[in-house]
Amino acid sequence: MSSDPLEPEITAVTTLGSGEAKWVQLQKIDWKDQTGKARIWEVASRKTRGSSGVDAVAIAPIIIHPSRPTSTLVVLQFRPPVAANCVEFPAGLIDEGETPEQAAIRELREETGYEGKVVSISPTIVSDPGFTTANMQLVVMEVNLKEGDKEPEQQLDDGEFIQRVVVPLDELLEKLDNYTRDGYAVDARLYHWAAGLDAARKRKW
Amino acid sequence: MSSDPLEPEITAVTTLGSGEAKWVQLQKIDWKDQTGKARIWEVASRKTRGSSGVDAVAIAPIIIHPSRPTSTLVVLQFRPPVAANCVEFPAGLIDEGETPEQAAIRELREETGYEGKVVSISPTIVSDPGFTTANMQLVVMEVNLKEGDKEPEQQLDDGEFIQRVVVPLDELLEKLDNYTRDGYAVDARLYHWAAGLDAARKRKW
Repeated sequence: MSSDPLEPEITAVTTLGSGEAKWVQLQKIDWKDQTGKARIWEVASRKTRGSSGVDAVAIAPIIIHPSRPTSTLVVLQFRPPVAANCVEFPAGLIDEGETPEQAAIRELREETGYEGKVVSISPTIVSDPGFTTANMQLVVMEVNLKEGDKEPEQQLDDGEFIQRVVVPLDELLEKLDNYTRDGYAVDARLYHWAAGLDAARKRKW
Repeated sequence: MSSDPLEPEITAVTTLGSGEAKWVQLQKIDWKDQTGKARIWEVASRKTRGSSGVDAVAIAPIIIHPSRPTSTLVVLQFRPPVAANCVEFPAGLIDEGETPEQAAIRELREETGYEGKVVSISPTIVSDPGFTTANMQLVVMEVNLKEGDKEPEQQLDDGEFIQRVVVPLDELLEKLDNYTRDGYAVDARLYHWAAGLDAARKRKW
């Protein structure tokens, strides 16, 4: 029997009361501004943050190969919030009791099959601080391949459909623009990384 | 009379029903996955998106000066959602009827006082696609200064307290790490841009 994946499809979008939501919530923040004036801010947050105080990690993989251009690895997956197939760095929520470093090694293995070593880990950074409490850490990981290494197996959960794509660093920004033209939505953090890389490589400044 | 700004302060955080919120909402998405199975995703969205279909722009300013190192410009402001002073690229919501390019020129002028020209504009990219519908465009702008140019005046609204800081590109990632050590929260997109820049400049790859 063939089991080719179907195109994912959104069937309904309905308003959700904060009480009904399991994973996310809205909160009202009362605060005093720099003049002492009482003000209000509305914010969305995840209910899943564990004792690490950090929601998630993303991994910037650097794939080093003896005869191929140095590359990174992006993942493609359908994301219901934006109703599109997205292009992102491998990423995931940090499990309870896990360090960000452990979460990064695990997520890279699960989503891409690659084993890497952690090169650097960012401080806790905030994903969209005018709108949500969401935070994360960016972990740079090196994957060192030998000539003739086969592409490893992914270790996806049931119901996870994630494709991985190896992209040479020199082509990353152009590839992301091409993905957009083909109807994908590119993650803003991945795009900014690619734009920074491009700024350093190609501009007169 | 002195009017030194006070430290902003959060006085209360309370749960908000979707009906009560003016700017944001929660939605439940019913969708069918790649096996045809009915699934649910919870998502947060802004209520303010206009006809452009894009929530916001951020500006990556490139400051070019005859005798100083090429720099960028970041803004510091208190962000109630993360209860911290944040370090971000200049940014803002797109007004109704405005193009992303117009929004970028306006926001750079208001938040920093600088006039720049648009060098490139990204496709629409998604800020946190596992959690929210939020999207944006990244606009690279060049600001060309002459020897002896004075720092321009900001054009802030009443109740806006935004500081701007010029940072040489070569020092950006280190500066962001220092801000974190000093208790600031760095925006993930700015951090990724700096990490991409750093990856291209310093690594063997």
